[in-house]
Amino acid sequence: MPTKITPLSKDANAWYNDVVLQADMADYGSVRGTMIIKPYGFAIWKRIQRVLGDAIEGAGVQDAYFPLLIPESFLKKEASHIEGFAPEVAWVTEAGGKKLQERLAVRPTSETIINDAFSRWIESHRDLPMRINQWVNVMRWEKRTKLFLRTSEFLWQEGHTVHAAPEEAAAETERALSMYKTFCRETLAIPVLTGHKTESEKFAGADYTLAIETLLKDGKSLQAGTSHNLGQNFAKVFDIKFADETGVRAVPWQTSWGMSSRIIGALILTHGDDKGLVLPPNIAPWQVVIVPIYKTDQEKKDVMASVDEVAKTLRKVDVRVHIDQRDGYSPGYKFNDWEVRGVPLRIEIGPKDVAKKSVMTVTRHTGDKTAMKIGALDKSIPEMLTKIQTSLLDNAQKYRDEHTLKVADYKEFKEAIEKGVLIDAGWCGEKIKEETKATIIILPFDQKTIPEACVGCGKPATHRAIFARAH
Amino acid sequence: MPTKITPLSKDANAWYNDVVLQADMADYGSVRGTMIIKPYGFAIWKRIQRVLGDAIEGAGVQDAYFPLLIPESFLKKEASHIEGFAPEVAWVTEAGGKKLQERLAVRPTSETIINDAFSRWIESHRDLPMRINQWVNVMRWEKRTKLFLRTSEFLWQEGHTVHAAPEEAAAETERALSMYKTFCRETLAIPVLTGHKTESEKFAGADYTLAIETLLKDGKSLQAGTSHNLGQNFAKVFDIKFADETGVRAVPWQTSWGMSSRIIGALILTHGDDKGLVLPPNIAPWQVVIVPIYKTDQEKKDVMASVDEVAKTLRKVDVRVHIDQRDGYSPGYKFNDWEVRGVPLRIEIGPKDVAKKSVMTVTRHTGDKTAMKIGALDKSIPEMLTKIQTSLLDNAQKYRDEHTLKVADYKEFKEAIEKGVLIDAGWCGEKIKEETKATIIILPFDQKTIPEACVGCGKPATHRAIFARAH
Repeated sequence: MPTKITPLSKDANAWYNDVVLQADMADYGSVRGTMIIKPYGFAIWKRIQRVLGDAIEGAGVQDAYFPLLIPESFLKKEASHIEGFAPEVAWVTEAGGKKLQERLAVRPTSETIINDAFSRWIESHRDLPMRINQWVNVMRWEKRTKLFLRTSEFLWQEGHTVHAAPEEAAAETERALSMYKTFCRETLAIPVLTGHKTESEKFAGADYTLAIETLLKDGKSLQAGTSHNLGQNFAKVFDIKFADETGVRAVPWQTSWGMSSRIIGALILTHGDDKGLVLPPNIAPWQVVIVPIYKTDQEKKDVMASVDEVAKTLRKVDVRVHIDQRDGYSPGYKFNDWEVRGVPLRIEIGPKDVAKKSVMTVTRHTGDKTAMKIGALDKSIPEMLTKIQTSLLDNAQKYRDEHTLKVADYKEFKEAIEKGVLIDAGWCGEKIKEETKATIIILPFDQKTIPEACVGCGKPATHRAIFARAH
Repeated sequence: MPTKITPLSKDANAWYNDVVLQADMADYGSVRGTMIIKPYGFAIWKRIQRVLGDAIEGAGVQDAYFPLLIPESFLKKEASHIEGFAPEVAWVTEAGGKKLQERLAVRPTSETIINDAFSRWIESHRDLPMRINQWVNVMRWEKRTKLFLRTSEFLWQEGHTVHAAPEEAAAETERALSMYKTFCRETLAIPVLTGHKTESEKFAGADYTLAIETLLKDGKSLQAGTSHNLGQNFAKVFDIKFADETGVRAVPWQTSWGMSSRIIGALILTHGDDKGLVLPPNIAPWQVVIVPIYKTDQEKKDVMASVDEVAKTLRKVDVRVHIDQRDGYSPGYKFNDWEVRGVPLRIEIGPKDVAKKSVMTVTRHTGDKTAMKIGALDKSIPEMLTKIQTSLLDNAQKYRDEHTLKVADYKEFKEAIEKGVLIDAGWCGEKIKEETKATIIILPFDQKTIPEACVGCGKPATHRAIFARAH
């Protein structure tokens, strides 16, 4: 069964859907806008939960679980919050055979219901900082579906914190962003831009929003994680107060931050190629797949003995290995199958390899073949995986550098944006024309060099901004 | 701050609520029937997910994620299924600013939406068995709330499998039940009864339901896990077919099985006592809490050096240790706090202990104090934890044995049931009177000795049945 993946260069959208479906990561749900995360896609999400979850817990944030349904009156308490989220809410209006007196929102985010609880739990400065996280499903009604990248329901983690002082909340906002940046670079091999969202793009109810952004191979940028400094906005409307060390009751300062299953879309569109998915070793459910090659029963016996030995050796050094022992499928079929699924390294073992006490390794993203001695695999394979991880990050960084342009004026801007790039340019702070579908994806932290003129209107620029078409 | 836990013997309901709230496991949600699982309660759920999840994965079942919202038409496909669940469903009727054309159920269970996907995914016998699990939130509208035990929304895992032959489905149904039994015994120290649910108590849409049941200290039995043999009921209505080895298209056989966050209620009501929660070491988030005792700065320095050494030693042998280093709280306050929270073993280290190179251990469920040499803690503490685990299971088994009665007739039955016990008696297969609020919680697998007469009506018995008041 040859795969039929549309070439990436020909049609990035078709390529994306082909890869997600043929790598068996996800499927469309029956309700418009929904998706099913299949075992292979979910295994990636589980690793994200494991690695990012360890970072969250390691920072002292505690996991909990808050109810799915939020009373409409809660959402309405913070005016800009309801205004921002109302158009996307799914409402429960009937339950237990009766019409409800108040509509209940299927959580689009949990600031309101969590702050309602915080208002009961927080009494004293001794209760602060309070730092809670939950891994849950959330719902934001969508008209178009793009598997992982845009679905009505998605999975995410949302951190919610309460602090005695504004500096602490500001520091927490930056800490969470920095955690996301590190996670993307080190685990997903995705280099990200960091900075502020503009006022019009910030979270509904926040003082300001920090974000990580990444340019994908379809030419659009994805907001891959956000961290909001909520100031005292929610604390005031939910009446959260704490007695400070002098006994005075004060209003605390808050943050919230989240990363979602959309990041799997970024993973696909950062590393994938015409053969399918490419997974960095640090996130791959299987880092190595071993494909045994044999014809006769005797060959099978010899080969499988070697396969088992290799798998055991690698598992001892914590390499995640899968042996593809399926009967009735040719080695060629299996090679292709695992290439589509993006396993970083394939090991082929046939009778000749057994005789030479070696194996053949094939690197997914380069196609490079290297023979390796069995006796040294406990060192050579982990080294190879480390090299692959670094190489994927380097490639992604190079792709972004090559696709980041500076332009002289609005005419150049309009031409450049069609190429699917980031544009690094000056901005005056006012709304720019909407004709290009480009937006300011981020105001980088690095504002050392601000271009003279705003790329939109030619007036003096007050900011350095990165423009792109956004997912 | 002395705790105010109502004695268990005085009022089991009040005791239960006191323990859940004062051990900081959970809180009431703002929508009637909902709950918030706080970090300490959620840490227990995370361990359940870890241990039971490993058993599920270890059996070759794969985790996935299916959408929260289920079209009403799906639920209606299996007649008894919709009849059973309709009264408990919460419906989304508006979303994205519009009234929906079809109501969407917030999943009460996922057979229908998963079987809709199976009907697309399964083509050949090569695709079978297909075995999927998901850890998700589910919603069944409740009028009364009892934290963990009865809430509108709860967390669970649900396994769904498809098999080529009825024997395989029957074996899977038993395998899942056996997995739950082992998990309850070995991890939660809860002995369970196993057997069939009666026809009237089986899952809506199943051929039959197997269950584990456990008697709690409030005198009621809890269904702690269920495993359903669905036969071909869902496969037929969702048109799932596979080509068998001869190419003939056949209807497969299915199972589903689940365990929920209700089990945390069982944990509390199996081991708890007048001081609060008691956690078996295999499920406790912290198995050991170390409370340092000092007055002067020099004492603090010496004691903390010893505390750190002990913690390091124990962590090396995989003991989950927490050091309670809170300033401004007395050792007595801390002792009490951790007793309420049920940590199985407390280690106290003060200046005298440091001098003697020993520590004082206090076992939560017995109050026994034992001095132990620091040099041998890597052995003595794990041994002690194993003993505690065994002892808690033995106590629970003893409690159940003492609270399982045989009765001569219906008059004795009515008296006995008031004592909060299991009644092991004969049953004729017909509905029994409803005046006692007792139901048949299970028809035990062990049917070797069937009493002569039905305890309800006096007619010849056809089954051995266990009666109780049920949660």
